[in-house]
Amino acid sequence: MKKTLLLLVGIVLFFGISFAQEDEDAFKIREIYDVALTEGQCYDWLEYLTQKVGPRLSGSTGAAAAVEFGKQTFDKMGFDSVWLQPCMVPHWERGKPSSARIVNSGVIGTQELKVIALGGSGNSGALGVSAEVIEVKTIDEAKALGPRARGKIIFFNRPMDPKQISTFAAYGGAVDQRVHGPREVGVLGAVGAIVRSMTTRIDDVPHSGVTVFREETPIPAVAISTNDANMLSELLKKESVKINLQTNCEWLEDKLSYNVIGEIKGSEFPDEIILVGGHLDSWDVNQGAHDDGAGVVQSLEVINVFNKMGIKPKRTLRCVWFMNEENGQAGAKKYAEWSNAIPEKHIAAIESDRGGFTPRGFTTEADEKVYKTKFKTAKDWEALLGPYGLTISPGGSGADVTRLKPQMGLLFGLKPDSQRYFDYHHARNDVFENVNRRELELGAAAMSALVYLIDKHGL
Amino acid sequence: MKKTLLLLVGIVLFFGISFAQEDEDAFKIREIYDVALTEGQCYDWLEYLTQKVGPRLSGSTGAAAAVEFGKQTFDKMGFDSVWLQPCMVPHWERGKPSSARIVNSGVIGTQELKVIALGGSGNSGALGVSAEVIEVKTIDEAKALGPRARGKIIFFNRPMDPKQISTFAAYGGAVDQRVHGPREVGVLGAVGAIVRSMTTRIDDVPHSGVTVFREETPIPAVAISTNDANMLSELLKKESVKINLQTNCEWLEDKLSYNVIGEIKGSEFPDEIILVGGHLDSWDVNQGAHDDGAGVVQSLEVINVFNKMGIKPKRTLRCVWFMNEENGQAGAKKYAEWSNAIPEKHIAAIESDRGGFTPRGFTTEADEKVYKTKFKTAKDWEALLGPYGLTISPGGSGADVTRLKPQMGLLFGLKPDSQRYFDYHHARNDVFENVNRRELELGAAAMSALVYLIDKHGL
Repeated sequence: MKKTLLLLVGIVLFFGISFAQEDEDAFKIREIYDVALTEGQCYDWLEYLTQKVGPRLSGSTGAAAAVEFGKQTFDKMGFDSVWLQPCMVPHWERGKPSSARIVNSGVIGTQELKVIALGGSGNSGALGVSAEVIEVKTIDEAKALGPRARGKIIFFNRPMDPKQISTFAAYGGAVDQRVHGPREVGVLGAVGAIVRSMTTRIDDVPHSGVTVFREETPIPAVAISTNDANMLSELLKKESVKINLQTNCEWLEDKLSYNVIGEIKGSEFPDEIILVGGHLDSWDVNQGAHDDGAGVVQSLEVINVFNKMGIKPKRTLRCVWFMNEENGQAGAKKYAEWSNAIPEKHIAAIESDRGGFTPRGFTTEADEKVYKTKFKTAKDWEALLGPYGLTISPGGSGADVTRLKPQMGLLFGLKPDSQRYFDYHHARNDVFENVNRRELELGAAAMSALVYLIDKHGL
Repeated sequence: MKKTLLLLVGIVLFFGISFAQEDEDAFKIREIYDVALTEGQCYDWLEYLTQKVGPRLSGSTGAAAAVEFGKQTFDKMGFDSVWLQPCMVPHWERGKPSSARIVNSGVIGTQELKVIALGGSGNSGALGVSAEVIEVKTIDEAKALGPRARGKIIFFNRPMDPKQISTFAAYGGAVDQRVHGPREVGVLGAVGAIVRSMTTRIDDVPHSGVTVFREETPIPAVAISTNDANMLSELLKKESVKINLQTNCEWLEDKLSYNVIGEIKGSEFPDEIILVGGHLDSWDVNQGAHDDGAGVVQSLEVINVFNKMGIKPKRTLRCVWFMNEENGQAGAKKYAEWSNAIPEKHIAAIESDRGGFTPRGFTTEADEKVYKTKFKTAKDWEALLGPYGLTISPGGSGADVTRLKPQMGLLFGLKPDSQRYFDYHHARNDVFENVNRRELELGAAAMSALVYLIDKHGL
């Protein structure tokens, strides 16, 4: 009887405490959202980064200014330490805008097509290259051209699949053309490459992005607007088309740049690191507002929210603004190399690099040996995050944090609504005005809530 | 033994069929999304409605043109019948833009404030009314002014709560000031009312919307931009402020207008009606792109998707573009009065009137006698709708369909992401350019999928 009573008391205490725990977490998360939505600074930081600093491609003066802005801003945030981590970044310059003109069509005349050089493109020389255009839908189709590709301009024209609900899935299904297409046809002797812009929109805005060459000399490679891609494709059904493609890009010597890092030492478990971050560099043709201005200011907002609430983290909290995600990931490589070598223990790393849109949750990945257990722990937090529209699901984390996998932590990617991201991605319209304040702040709040739970309960 | 075998066979058949059923539904829903995302017409209809027809406040020539556009478009959709349902609508006109000037402040001079007349506002006369301003936060506070309100301009300045995750909840917590505030202070003898715009943004764009008077003569009533509301509030802390408020609004005689209705007779259960709809009227200061151009074109897209897929509904499918939701709901009242009197049996009615943003699911309501059972049926469809990011939850349906409750059906409101809606609501920036094609199409697909399930399985 006495035992039964003790057991009962035990059960009541256990559930009582566990309910109280959940209540306290729920209460704190509500407070996190209140602070982010009423005392957030991320929108103002984004305004500065996009409007004052502006474009910040690796190696550019804009990138250097961005690092300086980062350092100065971090210095005001009450970190225990702030430092710049050096890394050598590739230095490619677009030069004057590229052009592509149809030079042999009676239908179109010498109409100028809406194109933008791909990051990494070669230089055509002042007169450009003039050649017949061959349209393909896949890299395999391009490879199958064999010697027929020689002296030609290859036009990669497989659209992102609009039927995919996640636009990232559609991007993943098409972007190989942009990343690897130009090199593959360059190897075959093609003199240029034109790639359909990576967007589901049908409009006049071309979208840049990285294209990768190895030891070969890069050929001129441009993205073409979807409207002009459709027009060119129609024209090719009727007649042979010759295009003059002119690019002014230059590969310069690698340059010294930096990751910006701030750290608050954990009061109880200083060896357990929780990282929040995004990438500081952007393409040169826009303000990098969604990609990835949003991510860097959201990750710093986590610190601001903790400061405002007076939360002293039990675990070490590190905010990292990575350099050179767009065309080389030199910053991410340097950080992981250094941290994995020590070795440090990142129990979690959260990246925001999918735009400042309404957050829908987090994707997660880890070394397969630990994934199941750690995912389960995080998944259980859905009960607390669900009221804010957030889910925890499997998926990629982010290009800047995925190399920390050997440390056996759980890696997260903030997952915002994806519908509008590729309207702006790597294009001239990725500007401050296209970021909504509330959406941005809600993303920062979601990250703060997750960090709060990881810091409190471990992972 | 034989019995056991039979039972087993029975179980296998039962689950087999039931799985096959689910598979078929999943397959059809996938097809619905494919069609909506690749052969949808809603974006083009919206372009015409917003750019060619334009503003369409009840009683205006724009509203008449919208009805004509509706009728012509419906006539091409292969409905069994299309008709216009007459209703008398209120006819209020804004006239020349209103103005509000601070006339006594040395600090501000005679600065013009950014204001817009509220729908239903009275006319100040050419010279306007000049009076001292009293700021209040609630209608109760305004009422408590009693005789002190006489001869004054009352300034309602309680913001929408930015801490609410759903902006509709924030709107619901503040909009009483706009709807009822001016009348309440008019009764006390106030000569004018200024209401803080219903938005969480802090900017220079004033937001209109309905304000309700009864038998009293309407006083001049305007909305003020949030920037100017904050400025005015700060100024009032320092000194007494006198404002000249000038409005040019006119109440004219009620006018004949119409709901636009199209119907496909059900092949098996013609008496069971499924309604999809939105409202055709908009405010006069914008193109009514999100409110509610999006809703009307999405509801017609359901018909387009069914046509493209060759689905002949078993139940009667009715698309209704309601007139006069914004300032009177004459169309909704007429429709419900007529349908409830027959009486018809709407087993479901789905309204889209919360903007053309990424859909998150549907809210549901019904007469309490049937709600629990019907909600359960719909909730079970989450298994099929979940992969598209959709949930079924309790909540309001829509102003145009809620009066059908006596028919004991389940009433749905499409629930899109709410973060940006009140950036545009009733303001000059609710234009076509601010609607994203994919978001709009996904909403139409969500409605089509729900209608498919209701039509197939009943409710």
